[in-house]
Amino acid sequence: MNRTEIRLSGFGGQGIILAGYILGKAAALYDHKHATMTQNYGPESRGGACSAQVIVADAPVSYPHLTAPQVVVAMSQEAYTKYAGELAEGGLLVIDQDLVHLNGDVHHVQARVASIPATRIAEQMGRRMIANIVMLGCLAALDHTVSAEALRQAVRVSVPKGTEDLNLKAFERGYEHGQKLLQPVPGSSPGSSESRG
Amino acid sequence: MNRTEIRLSGFGGQGIILAGYILGKAAALYDHKHATMTQNYGPESRGGACSAQVIVADAPVSYPHLTAPQVVVAMSQEAYTKYAGELAEGGLLVIDQDLVHLNGDVHHVQARVASIPATRIAEQMGRRMIANIVMLGCLAALDHTVSAEALRQAVRVSVPKGTEDLNLKAFERGYEHGQKLLQPVPGSSPGSSESRG
Repeated sequence: MNRTEIRLSGFGGQGIILAGYILGKAAALYDHKHATMTQNYGPESRGGACSAQVIVADAPVSYPHLTAPQVVVAMSQEAYTKYAGELAEGGLLVIDQDLVHLNGDVHHVQARVASIPATRIAEQMGRRMIANIVMLGCLAALDHTVSAEALRQAVRVSVPKGTEDLNLKAFERGYEHGQKLLQPVPGSSPGSSESRG
Repeated sequence: MNRTEIRLSGFGGQGIILAGYILGKAAALYDHKHATMTQNYGPESRGGACSAQVIVADAPVSYPHLTAPQVVVAMSQEAYTKYAGELAEGGLLVIDQDLVHLNGDVHHVQARVASIPATRIAEQMGRRMIANIVMLGCLAALDHTVSAEALRQAVRVSVPKGTEDLNLKAFERGYEHGQKLLQPVPGSSPGSSESRG
């Protein structure tokens, strides 16, 4: 059975849970796969770290617990510190480059690292709160567990009424950034961007 | 560690996921416990069985998989058939009595069974879609994993703007029904209502 584990993480208010919800919905409704989304409540629901665990599979997911995610998205330093280490070897780490400062640990698992100024892009578009959708767009370019087209459809039906177009634009901005990261950069491995660290 | 597993189930469109979300939020934000909520996507997101798994604990929940839930709420026959058998011994099964016809299987685990016409009550209140909140109210009376007061607060901040009062009334209707079920009935054990089966 094909099974992909994805962790989206950040802090409360960034729309991490909505992003996870959209990812699961896109996988199931539009890509016709199976998916689960688990959200953790606790101190994080009062403003600290926030995480959504999404599992996408060919068959029903009876075990929604992440063991070694193939993808970790980190939109805060705390989330990065907490979750980057769990990445599967060869996995993909996507960070908000203005919010996360890389340290050396992640190289232990030979992860591919992609960075995107998702929050800055969202701010330039006038709505900081769409950074989560920028991030989803970037993820769609870099990882094909869930198709970009399914994600666009899920974004359209999941965001607040009246914000569909803005969110879809945010998705495309992230997607374009992600595609650029796939271009080989001299002195860098494919799929990686330069880190600030 | 205290850990309670709760399964809410029914069919798509009944607000099962929202009910699970509210339950987890109430536990964490207002009762200051830890919680996870897992939703399954798959064929069920296209209209079949729908389930939310909520785990409430004293400490962070690292393993969000249900093993033997202490509480199962079933709002459809399919959900009942699928999930009643997993109840822990001595657990609590709450059914929508107009939508679920009991069979003998559940007695194998000596569950307490409570029935409430949640959907009928919601229809009498003019909004079928608040049956999920009627059900949460009933659950609050019968099981104290999450306090009724925390649930009221979580309902208030989680339902669509403008529907808060209606939803809180729905909660109280369910709560009152649940309290009545706790009264000893001649020929019935406490906490049980007569089944239709």
